Amino acid sequence: MQVTSLLRYSHVCPFLGHSNPNQLRALANGVHGNVSSLTATAFRCPMMGPKLASMVATRSYASVAGNKEVEEIHKSKDIPFDPSSATSEKCPHAKAASDAAAMAQKEADTKANPATEHAPTHEKDTFKYTEFYQGELHKKIADKSYRYFNNINRIAAKFPVAHTANPQDEVDVWCSNDYLGMSKNPVVLETMKRTLDRYGAGAGGTRNIAGNGALHMSLENELASIHRKEAALVFSSCYVANDACLATIGSKLPDCVIFSDASNHASMIQGIRHSGAKKVIWKHNDMADLEVKLKSVPKETPKIIAFESVYSMCGSVAPIKAICDLADKYGAITFLDEVHAVGMYGPSGAGVAEHLDFEAHHSTRRSGASVKGSIMDRIDIISGTLGKAWGVVGGYIAGSADLVDVVRSYAPGFIFTTSLPPAVVAGAQTSIAYQREFMGDRRLQQLNTREVKRRLAEMSIPVVPNPSHIIPVLVGDAQLAKEASDMLLAKHQIYVQSINYPTVARGEERLRITPTPGHTTEQITHLVSSLDTVFNELELKRTGDWVAIGGRAGVGMVASNPVLPIWNDKQLGLEDGTAPERLEGGKKSVVRVEAVRIAEKRLHHLLEPSLVGTVTAAA
Amino acid sequence: MQVTSLLRYSHVCPFLGHSNPNQLRALANGVHGNVSSLTATAFRCPMMGPKLASMVATRSYASVAGNKEVEEIHKSKDIPFDPSSATSEKCPHAKAASDAAAMAQKEADTKANPATEHAPTHEKDTFKYTEFYQGELHKKIADKSYRYFNNINRIAAKFPVAHTANPQDEVDVWCSNDYLGMSKNPVVLETMKRTLDRYGAGAGGTRNIAGNGALHMSLENELASIHRKEAALVFSSCYVANDACLATIGSKLPDCVIFSDASNHASMIQGIRHSGAKKVIWKHNDMADLEVKLKSVPKETPKIIAFESVYSMCGSVAPIKAICDLADKYGAITFLDEVHAVGMYGPSGAGVAEHLDFEAHHSTRRSGASVKGSIMDRIDIISGTLGKAWGVVGGYIAGSADLVDVVRSYAPGFIFTTSLPPAVVAGAQTSIAYQREFMGDRRLQQLNTREVKRRLAEMSIPVVPNPSHIIPVLVGDAQLAKEASDMLLAKHQIYVQSINYPTVARGEERLRITPTPGHTTEQITHLVSSLDTVFNELELKRTGDWVAIGGRAGVGMVASNPVLPIWNDKQLGLEDGTAPERLEGGKKSVVRVEAVRIAEKRLHHLLEPSLVGTVTAAA
Repeated sequence: MQVTSLLRYSHVCPFLGHSNPNQLRALANGVHGNVSSLTATAFRCPMMGPKLASMVATRSYASVAGNKEVEEIHKSKDIPFDPSSATSEKCPHAKAASDAAAMAQKEADTKANPATEHAPTHEKDTFKYTEFYQGELHKKIADKSYRYFNNINRIAAKFPVAHTANPQDEVDVWCSNDYLGMSKNPVVLETMKRTLDRYGAGAGGTRNIAGNGALHMSLENELASIHRKEAALVFSSCYVANDACLATIGSKLPDCVIFSDASNHASMIQGIRHSGAKKVIWKHNDMADLEVKLKSVPKETPKIIAFESVYSMCGSVAPIKAICDLADKYGAITFLDEVHAVGMYGPSGAGVAEHLDFEAHHSTRRSGASVKGSIMDRIDIISGTLGKAWGVVGGYIAGSADLVDVVRSYAPGFIFTTSLPPAVVAGAQTSIAYQREFMGDRRLQQLNTREVKRRLAEMSIPVVPNPSHIIPVLVGDAQLAKEASDMLLAKHQIYVQSINYPTVARGEERLRITPTPGHTTEQITHLVSSLDTVFNELELKRTGDWVAIGGRAGVGMVASNPVLPIWNDKQLGLEDGTAPERLEGGKKSVVRVEAVRIAEKRLHHLLEPSLVGTVTAAA
Repeated sequence: MQVTSLLRYSHVCPFLGHSNPNQLRALANGVHGNVSSLTATAFRCPMMGPKLASMVATRSYASVAGNKEVEEIHKSKDIPFDPSSATSEKCPHAKAASDAAAMAQKEADTKANPATEHAPTHEKDTFKYTEFYQGELHKKIADKSYRYFNNINRIAAKFPVAHTANPQDEVDVWCSNDYLGMSKNPVVLETMKRTLDRYGAGAGGTRNIAGNGALHMSLENELASIHRKEAALVFSSCYVANDACLATIGSKLPDCVIFSDASNHASMIQGIRHSGAKKVIWKHNDMADLEVKLKSVPKETPKIIAFESVYSMCGSVAPIKAICDLADKYGAITFLDEVHAVGMYGPSGAGVAEHLDFEAHHSTRRSGASVKGSIMDRIDIISGTLGKAWGVVGGYIAGSADLVDVVRSYAPGFIFTTSLPPAVVAGAQTSIAYQREFMGDRRLQQLNTREVKRRLAEMSIPVVPNPSHIIPVLVGDAQLAKEASDMLLAKHQIYVQSINYPTVARGEERLRITPTPGHTTEQITHLVSSLDTVFNELELKRTGDWVAIGGRAGVGMVASNPVLPIWNDKQLGLEDGTAPERLEGGKKSVVRVEAVRIAEKRLHHLLEPSLVGTVTAAA
């Protein structure tokens, strides 16, 4: 690629705009695999990448989405740029630019100091690694699955607002998995700060060597108790929890067969693969298909049915009871991923399995004893995350003491890794304890979800129908989905990431919207009207358009059963008038002092004095 | 097992001592797999487990280590115990006790409410899952590899002191991987607290969806810069980094062969396995063996040589330059795990690869440009952790922009997981930046290592010889190693975890000691004399005893080359008198204000105002 071609886009890129063309030419002459250093770098730039891709011969080679919007961001923001001190915090271009500058510097060094140059790392007749890597990257660009990360910095005091690369530019975040805003809850933050002061920044070891403290065991007790299981085990993330648990149990059980829902998360897919067990995929949420497949395996053969409660990209919910019935009938154990449900469903926030026996669990919610015969009781293994509704980071499994101990004793991904920092586990436990006591946040989250869904339906903006808190707005095209996301960010100060292949199927690309209790009426109104504008400008298909072509991903299709929300009117407090009210204006969410009092008791003996004063002052 | 048998041990276990025998009998009647609920629970208790194991017929069935010491802990500590409010933070027995109580409660519930009981989860002719799990656990107990976690809570203000289950009981920690005490460094803690206030507790999403902020990119820039590579990528842990990177690159490169050092860490072994690539294991640090094996594969076939710089359990160090030479000769790329070396070696703390060109890197340490032909420059992929010497949590890889981008774009373990919290990445970057500027901590760590090794040698306490900061005290027997560790904890208030199979080979069991700059002369003296006492009491083999039987694990064997420490006298400042002084009495480590000033500039634009005042006040 010629420098002159690139310079046509100097209005897109401040690095180009501010650089001396001769300097750029020198960069362009640096060879980086089979393209120039400048081109290689520019292709990875979130701004220039799509622009360059649009220049290549094949029209479908890569997305050209967002160019106009990108230009507007740059025109309007007037981001200062100094290549010599550039870092990506200041400007999304800076990383690419500084890479390019560093590459040029390195080439110059090499020429200036030939004596220090070592023999070529890989000789001529060896494998061409760099070319190979570039080929793999070009595949991603070609199929539009190459990811350009947005720079989003969620501001605790202004939840759900974030600033972008420039700290002065603020946007409403509508796609975070911090579903309840617990990441900014003052009782969580204060607990974490005290724990930092008391026990330091890191755990300093594995659970077996110097990295196991009272806080870790206390969190595991809390998790076992909320799920009413004998034991729980915490991992670096739920990705690791799912991977490690399924790989360990699946490989230990002799001749195990794992039945995996077709829509399962990557972490479960990896865990199943790593187990080496036989894998049988059943159609998403299809009980008839699952039964046929279970029936084909001898009853005495160990089996695991692995599935999720809330599927995060479409918001569908598993028929958990029916799956338990099949598990009993065919002698399988059940592995239920409640990652997108913990904190969000059930009287204690233990997930959908708890929610399905709402009253029985509500009346016994402080005991920790299982409700015999309840759906949650019937699930053998529950996995969950501390990093979404509970707002921190980490993952876990809960189940029988024996099962958990087998994973604890055999899973390398648990054994051979530094344990989570004391402040992280203390913050997570406080968050869980707070949410066990206070239903207001998850109720308001659901009410806001209902409101957004209702308003979008009124405007015929297509939403994949589901009973949960996820609002998947169907776009149906990778390029248009990215373009819509970019336009929302640039023109409307709204951040909703587009979800493309391989996270969703091709043709089902979407904007995945996640309301929180912190979103105000004004922010909801702004979201809906902005979506309407973007749908008009990009001529995206409305619900009626999908009906006309037979529907897609549940949109514009006749449902066999009406989709009823998991939280019913009674549970939301709509019948007895206890439902929480939506926030208006810039009002902040309520911090419930009783819940703070109860939550802080968990770690009181380690982290005195009482937090209540500090927290209520902060709230 | 009869309750009467158990009651013989009521002096070991406060739960037993305080419980009504009838209540215990009821528990004992509860069936839990093929043993009673009480026995099953007791077997997992860190105190009762080994005791019960010693009661079974086969003498070698499980370790009986530490019983006497355990009893002494209990006699001397007078831990209050209330089963009704028991949680494991208070007492190591409490978890087991509360499990037992919960199990009893559950059984009672079931009997009281037979109507709510559902059909047996798994019918008679199905696989016996619980029995199977118990069998797997008994295997661990039988081969002495079952792990009993100690409850160790490292107190930031008293580093390197921790409290055990009872917050009043304090011990010196001598086995943490918080090698430099950065987990309690005030600049790290203050940065983390400010980041919590500004950006909240959790990232709220994956790197692609709402979880990518300026702090994440800034940390990756710092990591790329310290290793003088084009790019870096941060993961939940270095376990995940190694697994994801090796699995991705190994599976992408066509017909790749991975050459793996025999002593590689579990995370690399898993990554290689998950890649599906052909794996060739070469003898630990044996260049002749590696060359023979490399030679056997066609030159044009892609190859990865995967190894570590410092091997954590024996402290040996790879011949990195020789490996690079072989990689060049046979067309392989190199993957170097510097997990136990980052922060600890090199003028900037970039690891052993940096250390090997100490002067060249020292004179250019702020540039971030690679030193052409240096060993660090020749390594293709470096992996490291943020959770050991840098004191926080997380892991990363650094390498060429293309390679890193391939991993970023294809590794499910990177893509599909919540990103690290803003406070964690900000704390980690600050720690790295601080250590880049200040060599005092790693110099003093090395000086303390030398001192401990010198004193142990004087007393013929056998240490596996190595050039690094690890002090593996050879015991050579699983039971005795655990017994020595328990005795140090109970009688001497010293915590050194015993390292048994499978972490080390059978017969090479050891106490792995890791000095820090925070250990005082008094603490060193206490460690050495306590070890001497324990060696006498348990009649452990001294160096001379190992010589007499031909040596083991390098102890008592004639070395082909003298083992010289990686840090030489000049680098430690011993020649020019700039070497730091050991701490005396209760004196705290120095916080270097210039390094704080430089470190805080990294995130200054996001986290104003200056930290220096706060930090120096705290120090």
